[in-house]
Amino acid sequence: MIEYRNLRVALLGGGTVGANVVDLLLTHGEELANRAGAGLELVGVAVRDIDAERTPAIPKHLLTTDAEALIVNADIVVELMGGLEPARTYVLQAINSGADVITANKALLATHGPELFEAAEQVGAQLYYEAAVGGAIPIIRPLRESLAGDRVTRILGIVNGTTNYILDAMDATGDTFENALAEATRLGYAEADPTADVGGYDAAQKAAILASLAFHTTVPLDAVYREGITEITDSQVKAARKAGYVIKILAICERIEIDGTGEYGVSARVHPALIPLAHPLAAVHGANNAVFIEAEAAGSLMFYGAGAGGPETASAVLGDLVSAARRHVIGGPGVAESTHANLPILPMASVLTRYQIELTVVDQPGVLATIATLFSDHGVSVEAVSQTVRDGKDDTQPAATLVIVTHVATESSLATTVEALAANDVVTAVVSVLRVEGL
Amino acid sequence: MIEYRNLRVALLGGGTVGANVVDLLLTHGEELANRAGAGLELVGVAVRDIDAERTPAIPKHLLTTDAEALIVNADIVVELMGGLEPARTYVLQAINSGADVITANKALLATHGPELFEAAEQVGAQLYYEAAVGGAIPIIRPLRESLAGDRVTRILGIVNGTTNYILDAMDATGDTFENALAEATRLGYAEADPTADVGGYDAAQKAAILASLAFHTTVPLDAVYREGITEITDSQVKAARKAGYVIKILAICERIEIDGTGEYGVSARVHPALIPLAHPLAAVHGANNAVFIEAEAAGSLMFYGAGAGGPETASAVLGDLVSAARRHVIGGPGVAESTHANLPILPMASVLTRYQIELTVVDQPGVLATIATLFSDHGVSVEAVSQTVRDGKDDTQPAATLVIVTHVATESSLATTVEALAANDVVTAVVSVLRVEGL
Repeated sequence: MIEYRNLRVALLGGGTVGANVVDLLLTHGEELANRAGAGLELVGVAVRDIDAERTPAIPKHLLTTDAEALIVNADIVVELMGGLEPARTYVLQAINSGADVITANKALLATHGPELFEAAEQVGAQLYYEAAVGGAIPIIRPLRESLAGDRVTRILGIVNGTTNYILDAMDATGDTFENALAEATRLGYAEADPTADVGGYDAAQKAAILASLAFHTTVPLDAVYREGITEITDSQVKAARKAGYVIKILAICERIEIDGTGEYGVSARVHPALIPLAHPLAAVHGANNAVFIEAEAAGSLMFYGAGAGGPETASAVLGDLVSAARRHVIGGPGVAESTHANLPILPMASVLTRYQIELTVVDQPGVLATIATLFSDHGVSVEAVSQTVRDGKDDTQPAATLVIVTHVATESSLATTVEALAANDVVTAVVSVLRVEGL
Repeated sequence: MIEYRNLRVALLGGGTVGANVVDLLLTHGEELANRAGAGLELVGVAVRDIDAERTPAIPKHLLTTDAEALIVNADIVVELMGGLEPARTYVLQAINSGADVITANKALLATHGPELFEAAEQVGAQLYYEAAVGGAIPIIRPLRESLAGDRVTRILGIVNGTTNYILDAMDATGDTFENALAEATRLGYAEADPTADVGGYDAAQKAAILASLAFHTTVPLDAVYREGITEITDSQVKAARKAGYVIKILAICERIEIDGTGEYGVSARVHPALIPLAHPLAAVHGANNAVFIEAEAAGSLMFYGAGAGGPETASAVLGDLVSAARRHVIGGPGVAESTHANLPILPMASVLTRYQIELTVVDQPGVLATIATLFSDHGVSVEAVSQTVRDGKDDTQPAATLVIVTHVATESSLATTVEALAANDVVTAVVSVLRVEGL
């Protein structure tokens, strides 16, 4: 057995991911040392409650409530507490004491990323965060390094397992959103308060991180447009499938030319969207994640795997730990933030996408022409219309349903079109407006 | 604009990938310099024929036939010539003159990898090869770094675009192998001499590279079991789909426990296999590639994209170039070979897999019992049998077809079973024997 110098590793947070990191670090220590070229000595795990039940169990002598005492004594600090504070303070302390930091904390990165990267650059420390997006799926490193010689033009990501589970269940079983959410909660896919997931907040944090990386531009969290899935109905899901689509909530990051100037800006948004059944993302089921990347030279790439889970996320953390240890031993380039492109961040109104609009209309001659004229008057071009005449058995039902799919249009022209549709006498209801992606 | 020091880049080979690398390097030079922290000055492109047509065109003043003069003058040498010699000699010269080397040459790595890595380690040079497997798909870096803290247990890879195109076309159109190959040749997916692809040689080289990386063990090319797709018939493809499978040629790398000893060995093999239609690899169409990885903690991951093509492969080469340049400027850990695990390489006879065997048998009572007994006598457990009785209209047809899917069995017990089947009076023909993967 080779003798290595030991690097002292401090772990902040003893939740599911933390407990799995400890377990793998203790059971695979020698193998990891061989890969890292350094021993990885776990000096302690800072937790709030030493006596809490943990699976796998963490040896008692490693547990402490004194995070700061651990940090000053560590070469590498692994932050798995989550939340903004005290995580931010501890990470800054770790950086300023010369430690490299590994974090899985997407909220922290999306909110305070630039401050943390700046602090790290000042002292030559490194900040690794492969586990912050897509759990076990290697996505940060491929974007940072493998695609460093290419230009990413678009990312479509299924980056939240809970909402993919819910939408997939609605699609598979015909269930309502409420029932699918209840089932996800029962199975442990959704938390007691599911707002962060179903409201799209978690996905928006990941979108900010992915867009910043892909476009070499700081994209702050509050620049990410966000819609959740709470308004998605079982009938929308059924109608989507009938039309050859499936509804997914996507994190979409785009590099967009600004009005034919030859200059580019970036946009990041999270919302439910229809994607064609033949698109690789349509086949991502259950709580899995996948990130679909389009780049100028590389073409289309997809990265697929488990987006969450204790051992899965621990795998990504340990990959970072081996990288950090190698760099600690040998020195060299780490993962400094790359924001040299510094592109402008465009509002949602600049985004061009397709829309599917479902209307109920009165069943009389000339309605289709009226609707078509209304679209073209607002500068929105129609790609396809399908009309279903109701059988009239149920008098409370309007007479006909129109499903219109548009060519690409801006949010603003679509919004004025929908306003005009709602105000028109032949339209009895605007049933559903959904964006269409992945065509 | 920031001023950077310039790194001198020499390119060996001006084929499709080389021409695309030159084009991107010249058009995106400033952007790449910002990412690398160094200017990337292309000092020349060594080619055999200066006057050959190239797309995109390479500026004439960059072309030379004197590779050695370029090499001694370069900080980074990009080898895109392919083949073993003079590529091996030039790469060794580059390493020994202190340059870092980027190569897309899978044959070179699979054959002389250990020699090249050893030479690089001696002088502290680096050898990058993201483009050697899976074209634009980031696979080397995720395996080396993102999964460095995990244990890969299995890789199933569609790593040859030509053969995937052919098998996919046979599945989609019902065509014979010969017709599908002719179409692939016409479209430029297959070369004039398709042996390297259809014989599985190209995939075997990639399997050796992937297995070496994944298991931290040198896996020489001649240890890779190899079967091509030239024997795959349209009726096998049709029967597979009817049974819920699709036939793909896979590179399979496995970490296998040696007979309950708690010790592990590795196996690498390339052969056609049935995979269930619901498996993510079944949805990989056309000339695309995908690598499906199973790891102890991370679970299942898949990486998907274009496996070949000029711009696509150039994207991977330029990603390596930016990485190499960063390291050149800052120093630090590169991509030294990791073979510390040094596991034994197991023969094909140690591999456990499932089989689908199609037999024609005489239609008389007791045949099924005879066949079932024969399997169990040879230690092969049967999972499923389906029987089709022919209608007897065509007297030249035997009376019944049996399709048997086994539980996992060794190659050797399967081979003796098939031998016994062929020798048995009730069996008129062993129509097809295929491995089943991805269950």
